[in-house]
Amino acid sequence: MTDGHFERIALIGIGLIGSSIARDVKQLGLAKHVVVSTRSEETLKRAEELELGTEYTASAADAVKDADLVIVSVPVGASEAVAKQIAGSLKPGAIVTDVGSTKASVIAQMAPHMPDNVHFIPGHPLAGTEKSGPDAGFAGLFRDRWCIFTPLPDTDPVALDRLKTFWMALGSRVDDMDPQHHDKVLAIVSHLPHIIAYNIVGTADDLETVTDAEVIKYSASGFRDFTRLAASDPTMWRDICLHNKDAILEMLARFSEDLAYLQRAIRWGEGDKLFELFTRTRTIRRSIVEAGQDVDAPDFGRHSLDAKK
Amino acid sequence: MTDGHFERIALIGIGLIGSSIARDVKQLGLAKHVVVSTRSEETLKRAEELELGTEYTASAADAVKDADLVIVSVPVGASEAVAKQIAGSLKPGAIVTDVGSTKASVIAQMAPHMPDNVHFIPGHPLAGTEKSGPDAGFAGLFRDRWCIFTPLPDTDPVALDRLKTFWMALGSRVDDMDPQHHDKVLAIVSHLPHIIAYNIVGTADDLETVTDAEVIKYSASGFRDFTRLAASDPTMWRDICLHNKDAILEMLARFSEDLAYLQRAIRWGEGDKLFELFTRTRTIRRSIVEAGQDVDAPDFGRHSLDAKK
Repeated sequence: MTDGHFERIALIGIGLIGSSIARDVKQLGLAKHVVVSTRSEETLKRAEELELGTEYTASAADAVKDADLVIVSVPVGASEAVAKQIAGSLKPGAIVTDVGSTKASVIAQMAPHMPDNVHFIPGHPLAGTEKSGPDAGFAGLFRDRWCIFTPLPDTDPVALDRLKTFWMALGSRVDDMDPQHHDKVLAIVSHLPHIIAYNIVGTADDLETVTDAEVIKYSASGFRDFTRLAASDPTMWRDICLHNKDAILEMLARFSEDLAYLQRAIRWGEGDKLFELFTRTRTIRRSIVEAGQDVDAPDFGRHSLDAKK
Repeated sequence: MTDGHFERIALIGIGLIGSSIARDVKQLGLAKHVVVSTRSEETLKRAEELELGTEYTASAADAVKDADLVIVSVPVGASEAVAKQIAGSLKPGAIVTDVGSTKASVIAQMAPHMPDNVHFIPGHPLAGTEKSGPDAGFAGLFRDRWCIFTPLPDTDPVALDRLKTFWMALGSRVDDMDPQHHDKVLAIVSHLPHIIAYNIVGTADDLETVTDAEVIKYSASGFRDFTRLAASDPTMWRDICLHNKDAILEMLARFSEDLAYLQRAIRWGEGDKLFELFTRTRTIRRSIVEAGQDVDAPDFGRHSLDAKK
């Protein structure tokens, strides 16, 4: 059984990520039974309408009974509550994983509650959009995206391998990382960009001299590139900020220090300093495109998208 | 002659913007003669290979002789030098315009040199990509984009109307604005986003704890959205920072103040403050999509672009 198949999968949480997993599992036939569980009755009903699973329950404890694979896809701040709910009902030998954007905190919240006879393997698929909820998910979300695992020192390599095979069946590329290092890497590649985006959109919203209508009308000049990130799920991002505090504060301090340097160069008309930075950053963009992490279409190919309208 | 046609157009500067105008003019047959001028011999040669005009000269003064419309498309810091070069050769009654991203500075640099018998009408098409140079231009760049004019108190309304008709022929939507207000609006919708993007990419590049390779590998998690802006032309952006200093410093101060508030909320675990901001910013995104200023395709439609590969 190392082909990514499981007899019974329990999905705890059925938002953008959970529902995308559900769609892939269904489409690829990766499980005989898929139990969907979420606290919200409305969301559970919607999941059933969308036929995302084979069984539905508001009880996370009921959901995990007899499940061979349990995937927790909830805002990271809810991790401990879920761990407590499911701990007593887990099947011996089951794999329990999550999809949280912070790993040290999720481990601290969940590991102490996990019974010795299950395999708890924290994971993080680097995939998503600015949309949220079960309707926002789609099959193929994880294709060619990274999924990072932060196994614990005593993680069974066979179970880890089985979990990786599952994610690879979804099209993911897999990687291992130390939880603390994961949290630092994500703080710079994901958390800081989101916080900065939220902040600049907030600043623009608060201006007295420029109206919101003007900001919206002329947003194609750069501003709109930030608004997509700033439209992400507020609960998810509040929890990330609170649960990766140290790494985020470290990155924010660096960012602010660098910005003060740039601000001073602008104030004093130091064109050479500005030119040096603005040249250096081009190289990073080129590397990202070369690494296949973004399309090279100018303006993100928006013009070609517009042309199709 | 209010159909956007001119007998002879001179294009001073033939980068992304100038060459896109050239392509539109040619495709739409908006002028009998198009003189292309740029200081760089290499660029001039390339413009000729691309057949962007009907005549080519390294001398801006020669280029503007007998031209009915002169469009200056150079980094804003070069505006005064160009104004001095062309002033003595302009045809009486000619319209002289520019495409610069800052307007008060361009007016201060150019207006004093303009003879009384020409119409100097500053303009700014809000269009572009992160690419630069004559090969980066394309027909249709200005379609459905705004072009803002900042006419001077004594601007002839007939000349202004004729210039607007030209830009509308290129597909632009046109607008008038006070130069100082233009500079404030652009500082928030364009200049601050670019500066922030340059800054965060610089911060990431400088980290000791996370490697450039890691930043690039995992950039799809938010970071890459900034790298496109940070790949923009360094000379153009150095000049914008130096020539819209006051408005940019004002916006930077607001941004930094707001970021300090956010940072403090993260440090002290004030989830409600974070949630409030993260919710408010969603509304702006929705308005931008509703105003047709961005596509609603999740992740900018990158998944659909990827699928086509």
